[in-house]
Amino acid sequence: MNRINVNLEKNSYEVLIGKNISKYLFREIEKGEFYKNIFFAIDTNVNKNHPEVIDNLVNSDKYKSNKITLKLNEYSKSYSSVEKIHSALLTKGYGRDSLLVSIGGGIIGDVAGFAAATFTRGIQYINLPTTLLAAVDSSVGGKTGINFSGAKNIVGSFHQPKLVLIDTKFLYTLPKDEVVCGFGEIVKYAFLSEEKFYTYLLKNINDDFSLKESSLLRFINESVQYKSDVVSKDEKESGIRKLLNLGHTFAHAIEVDQNHKIKHGQAVIAGLNCMLNLSLQLDLLTPERFKRYSLLINKFVSEIKIKKYDAANMYKIMLKDKKNRDGKIKFVLMKKVGEILLDVEAEKKEVITAIHNGLKIFC
Amino acid sequence: MNRINVNLEKNSYEVLIGKNISKYLFREIEKGEFYKNIFFAIDTNVNKNHPEVIDNLVNSDKYKSNKITLKLNEYSKSYSSVEKIHSALLTKGYGRDSLLVSIGGGIIGDVAGFAAATFTRGIQYINLPTTLLAAVDSSVGGKTGINFSGAKNIVGSFHQPKLVLIDTKFLYTLPKDEVVCGFGEIVKYAFLSEEKFYTYLLKNINDDFSLKESSLLRFINESVQYKSDVVSKDEKESGIRKLLNLGHTFAHAIEVDQNHKIKHGQAVIAGLNCMLNLSLQLDLLTPERFKRYSLLINKFVSEIKIKKYDAANMYKIMLKDKKNRDGKIKFVLMKKVGEILLDVEAEKKEVITAIHNGLKIFC
Repeated sequence: MNRINVNLEKNSYEVLIGKNISKYLFREIEKGEFYKNIFFAIDTNVNKNHPEVIDNLVNSDKYKSNKITLKLNEYSKSYSSVEKIHSALLTKGYGRDSLLVSIGGGIIGDVAGFAAATFTRGIQYINLPTTLLAAVDSSVGGKTGINFSGAKNIVGSFHQPKLVLIDTKFLYTLPKDEVVCGFGEIVKYAFLSEEKFYTYLLKNINDDFSLKESSLLRFINESVQYKSDVVSKDEKESGIRKLLNLGHTFAHAIEVDQNHKIKHGQAVIAGLNCMLNLSLQLDLLTPERFKRYSLLINKFVSEIKIKKYDAANMYKIMLKDKKNRDGKIKFVLMKKVGEILLDVEAEKKEVITAIHNGLKIFC
Repeated sequence: MNRINVNLEKNSYEVLIGKNISKYLFREIEKGEFYKNIFFAIDTNVNKNHPEVIDNLVNSDKYKSNKITLKLNEYSKSYSSVEKIHSALLTKGYGRDSLLVSIGGGIIGDVAGFAAATFTRGIQYINLPTTLLAAVDSSVGGKTGINFSGAKNIVGSFHQPKLVLIDTKFLYTLPKDEVVCGFGEIVKYAFLSEEKFYTYLLKNINDDFSLKESSLLRFINESVQYKSDVVSKDEKESGIRKLLNLGHTFAHAIEVDQNHKIKHGQAVIAGLNCMLNLSLQLDLLTPERFKRYSLLINKFVSEIKIKKYDAANMYKIMLKDKKNRDGKIKFVLMKKVGEILLDVEAEKKEVITAIHNGLKIFC
């Protein structure tokens, strides 16, 4: 089991990574300063597909323990889902001295994290991500949130978990498109971090996206380590944490333009390709590097289908993004792996061209 | 104009107190690190009753400025009101670099504060309280929240304002019952702080609750100073901030039992009287002191009417309070002015008796 520390001014915490490590949850709870009134928010599918793991966690006779199961998507990533958790907490008599544990993907993590952030002005929270996407990205960093009025994650708060426990056991039963989604963020971390990891990923990503424990662990460890380092330096995204938005300005616009019929990780791959194209257009990226980085993107071509898109609409969506102000879109672009530029502006025409060039391979 | 500093580890801020000082809002915004995209959430009555003050604030040609007016009560202190503010912010194109200013009483302050805490994971917030209750208590300290499922302030977060501006001008147009409510918290601070302020309050509180600038300023300054000192030491209520709950365990139960037909400040006076009675019963308070402290409570007898109450129901409500766990109610009680005891437990019978003794003078 690997342990990665997220160092924060207050409330530092650990990310544990390994196979079959869910069972160590209680050992960690005993070791740390955790409340013993535990409430689980569990994805319905995970609850059904891993009954023995879940039962062992929930049916503790040492602690107060209850659960709610939730089946969420981007549409139900809303306040009404937060209310379901709050309502269950109240009904079962939970108070300030409670520990909320979410077991599921990124959406349930965001929703349960926000429920924890706001119940009695904040209770403890542990995240057990069960998708590759949540494992390598959203489970670490304390961003919680819900969608509102068509705007993604527009409502939320920073509320760091007290522990993240990544059990790779869950990842082997994921459908292929979920695995592809996780790789979306892993590719982002490969672009962000360093040539060595980029080369390793390019070589070890299987064409059928099947998972092998040793390389899977490296993919997760490298991604989480990079994210932890950034979050440690900039907990609340006032500076370099913007790095993590590489490809995401495009990705969010793709998701909204496609009415959320494309999955986040797929949109990230497509968004990263738009980013590469814009970086090339602005002469940040040499054609040689562009070609080399496209090798990784091209592995995903058969896994992502975009039937129709509206580039002008996507441009409008980007302007409305909460990160962009005063009619300017600020892009995160790259010169090469590990050399990233923040707050780059571009002409509307250039952005539209980058969208067309970035998406055509998926159409 | 008096300035009181709320010293926090991060994000310390000032409370400005004086007459006709609303106009200094922009000067303060210019001086500090404030965003210039300003959105006002204003109580409907204040908006109507002080048109010239509001117009001068909202119709700035230097800044982006918009407003929403809201008429809120304990029932509409709900997420749907938070959504109204978020919706207006989105419609008017506000993003992370925004400053939300609330102008109104405690409810709008709590709701707008929570809206600020959660919009794009937190925007800047300034509070201009216009009721005596909000001025002396809820505007300072960063507690924000809404009611849910019958539980008061069960959902919310700690989000400190970047400035609190108490303009006493607003307080002179308040109806008498609103003034009485403010005195509810001032009496609490008199019990909490020191004999000198208690004596001053007892002497200078007018029988008709009319306000005189010099004594009003002292009432506010002493209360805010006490609260600021406590909040500075314990921002998130993990320890001595519990002091501020003096009388409030009873008060909340009274409010719920009375279906919110009694105002918070009135319930606080009645709750403080229950607290005095429980302190007497438990031999913490001598009969002499009890008698002396009753002098202040008795000034409010004609202003608070409780027709019928259900002591057993109130006991049940107190058990459900988010501060109380494991079937134990933790009371804040007093030995004398300035000598307060935290986490005192009492038998159910004693609590019921204290309720009867505390409420009978208002029946």
